[in-house]
Order: sequence, then structure tokens, then C-alpha cells
Amino acid sequence: MSSAKLNAPKPILAVLDGMRIDPPPIWLMRQAGRFLPEYRKLRSEVGTFLELAYSPKLAAEVTLQPIRRFGFDAAILFSDILVVPDAMNQKVSFVEGEGPRLDPLRDPEGFSRLRSEIDLSRLAPIFETIGRVKRELPGRCAMLGFCGAPWTVASYMIAGRGTPDQAPARLFAYRHPSAFQELIDRLVEASIAYLSAQFAAGAEAVQIFESFAGAIPKAFLEDWSLTPIRRIVDALRGKLPNVRIIVFAKGSGLSPDRVAAATGANAVGIDWTVDPTEAFFNDRSSSKPLTPLQGNLDPLALVAGGEALGRGVKRVLSGFGSVPHIFNLGHGILPETPIENVERLVAMVRSGDELDNKG
Amino acid sequence: MSSAKLNAPKPILAVLDGMRIDPPPIWLMRQAGRFLPEYRKLRSEVGTFLELAYSPKLAAEVTLQPIRRFGFDAAILFSDILVVPDAMNQKVSFVEGEGPRLDPLRDPEGFSRLRSEIDLSRLAPIFETIGRVKRELPGRCAMLGFCGAPWTVASYMIAGRGTPDQAPARLFAYRHPSAFQELIDRLVEASIAYLSAQFAAGAEAVQIFESFAGAIPKAFLEDWSLTPIRRIVDALRGKLPNVRIIVFAKGSGLSPDRVAAATGANAVGIDWTVDPTEAFFNDRSSSKPLTPLQGNLDPLALVAGGEALGRGVKRVLSGFGSVPHIFNLGHGILPETPIENVERLVAMVRSGDELDNKG
Repeated sequence: MSSAKLNAPKPILAVLDGMRIDPPPIWLMRQAGRFLPEYRKLRSEVGTFLELAYSPKLAAEVTLQPIRRFGFDAAILFSDILVVPDAMNQKVSFVEGEGPRLDPLRDPEGFSRLRSEIDLSRLAPIFETIGRVKRELPGRCAMLGFCGAPWTVASYMIAGRGTPDQAPARLFAYRHPSAFQELIDRLVEASIAYLSAQFAAGAEAVQIFESFAGAIPKAFLEDWSLTPIRRIVDALRGKLPNVRIIVFAKGSGLSPDRVAAATGANAVGIDWTVDPTEAFFNDRSSSKPLTPLQGNLDPLALVAGGEALGRGVKRVLSGFGSVPHIFNLGHGILPETPIENVERLVAMVRSGDELDNKG
Repeated sequence: MSSAKLNAPKPILAVLDGMRIDPPPIWLMRQAGRFLPEYRKLRSEVGTFLELAYSPKLAAEVTLQPIRRFGFDAAILFSDILVVPDAMNQKVSFVEGEGPRLDPLRDPEGFSRLRSEIDLSRLAPIFETIGRVKRELPGRCAMLGFCGAPWTVASYMIAGRGTPDQAPARLFAYRHPSAFQELIDRLVEASIAYLSAQFAAGAEAVQIFESFAGAIPKAFLEDWSLTPIRRIVDALRGKLPNVRIIVFAKGSGLSPDRVAAATGANAVGIDWTVDPTEAFFNDRSSSKPLTPLQGNLDPLALVAGGEALGRGVKRVLSGFGSVPHIFNLGHGILPETPIENVERLVAMVRSGDELDNKG
């Protein structure tokens, strides 16, 4: 990074450093994906999802598509959290319209099929993608990498697929607590190596997705989720003191300040169910700086458009008050989202004008 | 209710009235169901789930099965929350192993197929079941009725099935806010009529299941969930001043005291993700009486058995401190639950002995 860039950081990086910017910078989770016709066209010309994710030229193109169309303030690597089990030698595939399928780890014996360390050479195309995207990004646009948090990735590895309430993973953890801890430990180490390589390739910040925090009994939240994430964050900071990390712990039930304190994150993503007003007022009496927050429009308000979208955007913009804020959805953008609704969203966030006229 | 019973209320009713009892009374959500071999045998001899639910003799038998086997402190009517849409003329069926299927309300025009008021005559067999069970209950065992909360029932009526995050219902609410409110209003009225008839038939308390509170954006929690439940509770209290009502609002993210204050519930059920210590300590500084709570062992700890069960039960028993407490799971019992684990659970809760020896 040049010193000129350090002097004038990109808006999202400035927010991650604790600065409030008006209007807030914006990107959308899953912005490189199926709601874009140009993505669907390119996807139809490639065999499998993983072939696309592991093709630097095509993955870079897909990553850049939403930047060209909407001028978002961040590009997020086109990939999936399950490339980590793939690089640990667990068989992973993506069934169109159904989601991921893995050869499930039904019992501790299944571990023998896995590598104990992640094979970063298998993920080399991803790091090349990051470099390619970085070179083509507009000046204000930040390059984001990501990975899944250990519990969320483990829940797919154990169940072999997405599951309601992550029941198979919880049952595995109850039945085989030491093997479960071993899996979490392996994923901590794999995530450290994987994110370090993403930073080395040019990522300017990373998001750790704990998409399934909501299924963890609170008695286990520290052990299964917060401490593993903290170990990843601490290890990255040990290598790269100024790394910027966003933690999105959907359904954790904790205030963002507690998530930030427990994990060491620079910023906390909040899901659509959370009231941003309550989310930060909880701990606001303290004299500490406000935790930067990211979120949290309901993706279905963006699908619906109309008044629901206008009111939803207004609520998000006002709800975060004076907190350093990155505008985002409260979950990934849905494939059925009309393009024109995204255009209107970006215009509303950037101008604020429509809020008074039509909101 | 005789005056003798009023003088020596059943343990669960005493807790609902604010009394702390040690050891706490116990029942399990979905206790009349598939984890019991005697249920599976009876179920295999009846055509459909609704035929069973609408057969007073068989439904009473199924309701009583777990009482005979485990001596629980409450019998909960064997039925389903979707008998309400069934009695509003929406086609409902249950696909074995897949769950409920309804003719979905894709748009406001779909309302024309529905009755505006619930047809209580269609539910007459349910009221007869309550009377039959009541006559056979052991003295300390309370008769519980139930219904789904309007949002949870509406989400099934709109989607036609269970859905992750209740996306179709949220989208409907955004696109058609007044039609959505109309549906909620109809369900409020239907629930008042249905629960009133359950009390008239002999129910001593009812539980209102807001199983999908967790998918509601907080900005809409009042309008979609808390206020509709409050209207049901207020109307029932208007007719029957001493009715006892438990509200189970899974994933609401609110402290139980707030749920109780917002809905008027006597007691609040909490799900397995909540830490009971935090749940009630939140508002404990106030001088108000402690809200009775129900919950919240992870149903998967009961499936797992062994140390996970011992520790889980210990955590629940100690976690509720001095709060009036009804022991329950944090969600319905799972079909794969071993009978012997339930026997051990009941023994642990009732004696406390094993807690010190094996917990």
C-alpha cells in the first residue's frame, strides 16, 4: 500500500478504523452472484461452482461485475467458505438450487480422511484472483477477503450440507467433545493460514462469517465460536498488526460491543433481525469509542422494493446514529432481487434525497 | 375447578402463579409424539395426522401416553398449530417425514378462499379430547392447551410449508402490508375463539407458540408478534380473569421480562440458545416479582445423553436460580430421542441426586 493511500484511506477502511463517514460506504453480502444477469450468463458457461471459484480470470470478472454496475465501496472475493474443507481434502460440491454437499464427518473416525493442515496450494487460484481484482479496482473501492468461522464451517463438514439449527454438529459436539474441539482447532489454524495468504495477496480487510451463531447454546458460545474467532484474529494481528477484520455473527444474541470485545474484531456485522438503535445504545454509556457496525437492511425489503425499501433504508440510515457505519444488508442479497431495486438502494444511500421525498 | 383444587393447585399452575417449587415441575414440548414407540404404533394404524388429531379417543390416548410413562406434571393436547388454518378453510395436510403442506396464500386474492371466522365446529373433536384427557389425569398433572401465535401461523399459511427464515411471509408483509395485517387480525380473532373453547373444555393453562419470532426484524416485532399476542391474552383475560398463559417466543432476542410485559403472559418459555442466568438477571434490579420461566435444555443434549445430558440438566437447574421455573426443553423433543435418556432426565430433575454423582 502506498503512503498516498495510507494518507487518504478508502472509505470502508476509514470506517473500520473508527471514522464515521456520511453518507456511509456501501457493499452488499453476496453482491457477486446470482441476482446479476451477467453473473448468470458467465456461470452457465462454466461446469461447476468450484471450477469458477478456482479460475482466477473468471472469478475476478465475477468479483468486479457488481463494482462496475453499482460502484460499491468494496469488492468481495467471489468464492465460498467451503473452499477450506475442500483444501483439507473433504469432498465438496455445489448442487444447483440446493446448496453445498460434502462427504459428511459422521464420527471422529472420519477425520482420518482429512489433511491435518490446509493445502494452500489448492487455493492458489484464489490468491491470484485477489491480485487480479486489486489491480482493476477503482481508487475508493476496498478489496475484501473472507472465510467462515470455525463453528459455521464445522457444521457443514459434520452434516455434509446446510441444516436447520445445525443439529448434526451440535449432536457431534455433545457426543464427541474432544474430537469436536480438535476439528475447531484445525479450522482455526486453517483459517489463520488462509486469511494470512489473502492479506498477502492484496486483501485490505476480511470478513469472518459466523452465519450460524444463532444455533449455539449460550453456554458454548465462547468455546465454539468467540474464542476460536479470537484466536484467528490474534494470530493475524501477531503477523500483521494493522489488519482490519469484520465479524458477522448472525443470531449471536450479543451486543456488537460484546462481539467486538470477545473476538477482537474492528467492526461487527449485524443481521436484519437486530434493531441498530438497541444494538449500540446497550453499551453506549461507556467511554470507549463506538464499535464500527455493518448492516443491516432485510434482504427481503430489497426484493420487495416500493415503500418497504424506502422505509427500511431510512430506518437503517437513522438507526445507526453517530456510529461508524458501513451500509450493508443484514444477510446475503437474494437471487430474485430486481436490479432496479439495488440501483435505487445505492442512490438512496448516497444521496439521502429520496428519503425525504418517497421514504 | 373445585375449591379443593384451588387450595392446592397443581405444581405447574402454582409456578405460573409465581411460586417457586423445588424440584421444578417438568413437561416436554412435543412429549406426545414420535419418540414414543407406543405413539408410532398407534400412528401407523391411522390414516393421516389430522385424522388422529380429530379423533378424541385416539388423540386423548396419545396425549396420555407420556403421562403414564414418565409422570410429567402437564399433559399437552396432542394436536398441531395448523388446525387453525384448517378450520379457516385452508387446505392442510402433513407429509410424513417432510412436515406440513398448505395451499399457500401467494397474494391477497388468496384470502377469498378463506373463512373470515374460524369454524369451531370443525375443532369440536379437539375440545372433546381435552375433556377426555382431563378426566383421566393424575391429580398433580395439569392440562395444557395451545395455539400458534398469529405471525407463526401466518408464515405457514403464506408459504404453504415451513421455510427457512420465513422469507415468503416477510416478503408478503413488505409487499402487501394491509393484507398482511388483515391476516394477523383474523388469526388474533381465531386464536381468541379457539383458546376460549379450550379453556371451556377443561384446559388449565395454554401455551402460545411464537416459534418463528427470530425471523422478525425488530422494527416489526411489536406489530407482527407482540401486539397480536397481547390482544389474544387481553381478550382471554376479559372473559376469564384468572387464565394462565405461557408465551414461547423463540429467538425474539428480548429478555423474558420484556416478553411478559409486552404480551401479558404469566410465564415465558425460553429456547435452548438462551442463557437462563442472563435471561432473568437482565431485569432483576427491578422490584417487580420475577417472571416465571420455562425451559430450556437443548433437545440434542437429551438425544446425546451421557455427560452432555448430565451437565446440561445441571446447568438448567442452577441457571434459573430463584426464579419460578418449569423444567422443559428449549424446543420440541426430537423423534430420535432414546427413551432411557428421558427417564434419566426425569429422575435427575426430580431427585437432584445424580447431579452431584455424575453431572
